[in-house]
Amino acid sequence: MTVGDMRAITTSGPVLIIGAGLLGTSLGVCLHRAGVSVFLSDISPTAERLAADLGAGEVASSYEELHPTLIIVATPPDVAGTIVIDALGRFPDAVVTDVASVKVPIMDSVLTAAAHSGGEALSRRYVGSHPMAGRERSGAGAADSDLFASRPWVIVGHQDAAASSIRAVRDLAVDVGSIPIEMDADAHDQSVALVSHVPQLLSSLLAARLVHAPTSALGLAGQGLRDTTRIAASDPRLWTTILSENAGPVVKVLEHIESDIHNLVTHLKVATEYCPNEGGSVAALHRVIVEGNRGVARIPGKHGGAPRRYSEVEVLIPDRPGQLGRLFSDLGEAGINIEDLLLEHSAGHKAGVARLMLEPVVALGAEQELEKRGWRIISGSHIDVLETSGK
Amino acid sequence: MTVGDMRAITTSGPVLIIGAGLLGTSLGVCLHRAGVSVFLSDISPTAERLAADLGAGEVASSYEELHPTLIIVATPPDVAGTIVIDALGRFPDAVVTDVASVKVPIMDSVLTAAAHSGGEALSRRYVGSHPMAGRERSGAGAADSDLFASRPWVIVGHQDAAASSIRAVRDLAVDVGSIPIEMDADAHDQSVALVSHVPQLLSSLLAARLVHAPTSALGLAGQGLRDTTRIAASDPRLWTTILSENAGPVVKVLEHIESDIHNLVTHLKVATEYCPNEGGSVAALHRVIVEGNRGVARIPGKHGGAPRRYSEVEVLIPDRPGQLGRLFSDLGEAGINIEDLLLEHSAGHKAGVARLMLEPVVALGAEQELEKRGWRIISGSHIDVLETSGK
Repeated sequence: MTVGDMRAITTSGPVLIIGAGLLGTSLGVCLHRAGVSVFLSDISPTAERLAADLGAGEVASSYEELHPTLIIVATPPDVAGTIVIDALGRFPDAVVTDVASVKVPIMDSVLTAAAHSGGEALSRRYVGSHPMAGRERSGAGAADSDLFASRPWVIVGHQDAAASSIRAVRDLAVDVGSIPIEMDADAHDQSVALVSHVPQLLSSLLAARLVHAPTSALGLAGQGLRDTTRIAASDPRLWTTILSENAGPVVKVLEHIESDIHNLVTHLKVATEYCPNEGGSVAALHRVIVEGNRGVARIPGKHGGAPRRYSEVEVLIPDRPGQLGRLFSDLGEAGINIEDLLLEHSAGHKAGVARLMLEPVVALGAEQELEKRGWRIISGSHIDVLETSGK
Repeated sequence: MTVGDMRAITTSGPVLIIGAGLLGTSLGVCLHRAGVSVFLSDISPTAERLAADLGAGEVASSYEELHPTLIIVATPPDVAGTIVIDALGRFPDAVVTDVASVKVPIMDSVLTAAAHSGGEALSRRYVGSHPMAGRERSGAGAADSDLFASRPWVIVGHQDAAASSIRAVRDLAVDVGSIPIEMDADAHDQSVALVSHVPQLLSSLLAARLVHAPTSALGLAGQGLRDTTRIAASDPRLWTTILSENAGPVVKVLEHIESDIHNLVTHLKVATEYCPNEGGSVAALHRVIVEGNRGVARIPGKHGGAPRRYSEVEVLIPDRPGQLGRLFSDLGEAGINIEDLLLEHSAGHKAGVARLMLEPVVALGAEQELEKRGWRIISGSHIDVLETSGK
């Protein structure tokens, strides 16, 4: 049973979803399945049709007959503001929210337009949203009613927003299984610049260095390079829009990193050109790595609480069909619960390594059980790792 | 059965290992277990003793009585050169190699010292090594005889090296299960700067930005931030030494990235300060993401060959004990082989997502089998992913 099966649906509907991409369709499927009356609208009739066929609701044939209580604008961020303003004017009884990943530009354009058209009346009904739920793929075809389950959903109010509008959007977030978090537009955009947009750019910039690298160099790639460049495979069109819209906060973080790199390059150049063991460069390098240790330790653990201590057991997985399945069957039979798992391999690898994170009290027993069943344990349960570090 | 059980041991020994840390001890355990006579030496008597107790060989009580045919210098990179030179002088019949992660400085100091002491005779017996096998933890306690299994082992020759010396080191690499790759010292140091040292620095620099970030911002962290900052948890002392020794090649890559960031910052500042939708900034952003796509696609797959296409099936894992074990038991019972697996969760998550990579032909059947057994499939097998992208 998932979160979705247990929740009470508080959104009364009908709901109009404008934009039938990944987020719009996923929200539609989720609400429609829970009995909410959902209407879909997209500039592409094909996208609208596909979303309806996927169970996201029914195509809104004419706006005149609709009386939505909630409108969700799920278009690309660069057009969301205009569509929100249009929706506020067209449906005077509806609360309107958008789900774009950048909030300040949309908030600004909505509040400015509302002020021009006579003020508070329109803006009272607008509240911004950012469900922290996405995937590398986009479009209705990738839609998924569990996309929002247990993810943070940022609710971005403003001074004119009515309490009832904020409540309506919070109910929506809860209905689809998300965890509502209130934040203002500036704080939101600065936060995602730091934890999402700049990591994307650095990953892309690093991966871009590989385009002209010799094949022999790439043959030495290990898990570190794979992890740091994984998100460099993301969709260029989507990310160009997001990064453009959030250019201000992104630049602030990037400038810090540019200056840190410049500082490091300066130290290292002095060291290599004039004095191989120049003290300043060693200290500068050490500082960067230590600060990195401190930063990564602040990323919250799996459940958003304090990081937990796990014991790690590394098991060698022969590269033959079914070995991972056999490992987990054995773990199941032995009654051993795994808290987390990471698979590792590198170029040329014939065997893989499964890193099992276990509760410290069960780790030693698990190791013995696995060895009894013929598994090769690479490193024992005496090693404790913090879940925080991302392993 | 692992690679280690099947290989023929060609190293004749006796072998002297100088430095009983992670690599020295792991090599000792590996060779000793295969019947090679191994002697250990470390400036720390405790480390020597611990390594011997772990089965890495016997403590070398006196150098005078030893007649090693192969000496492995497994000390930190900043002292390896001096120790290699000393070993070449002291044991006139032995081939000497070192296993440090940076090769040019050691090669330079060995060849310079050899030239001063009369030339070729000494340098003929030196060959550099770099087993691409490490872990975040160091010291004999983390030693592991499977550390080298299927990993690349870079063999760094030079113009004076005897063919027999290169053969001896290649045999060592093969004996411990590694894949020998020959490369010159410059190419090696430039390669590891690109695929290992600069990724480490960027990960640390990114994570360092989190040190003073608001807790609310960190609460929005997802898998992207976790992946890009995972290696930022690495050991500062070890990495400071490695990065200092390879400062030249590291600076070259870093300068490119600094210039790319500078270019991007310039474009984005113009866009934010003067003209919100300035064309140049959008194009610059798009170019970075597209180049990142191209770069990440060049990282070789699991087996070092062409990337393979997998079908991906995402399964919701309720956060209750034993669920992952139950999933794999079910997969095992249904005879479904998994090619790769990634677990995902983010702050506040109550349920996790297992992304199973399957051979395309079995994906649809697997999905049906899992649903039949009560698993919630989040996304279907119609989505193909390239293994290359590291997901």
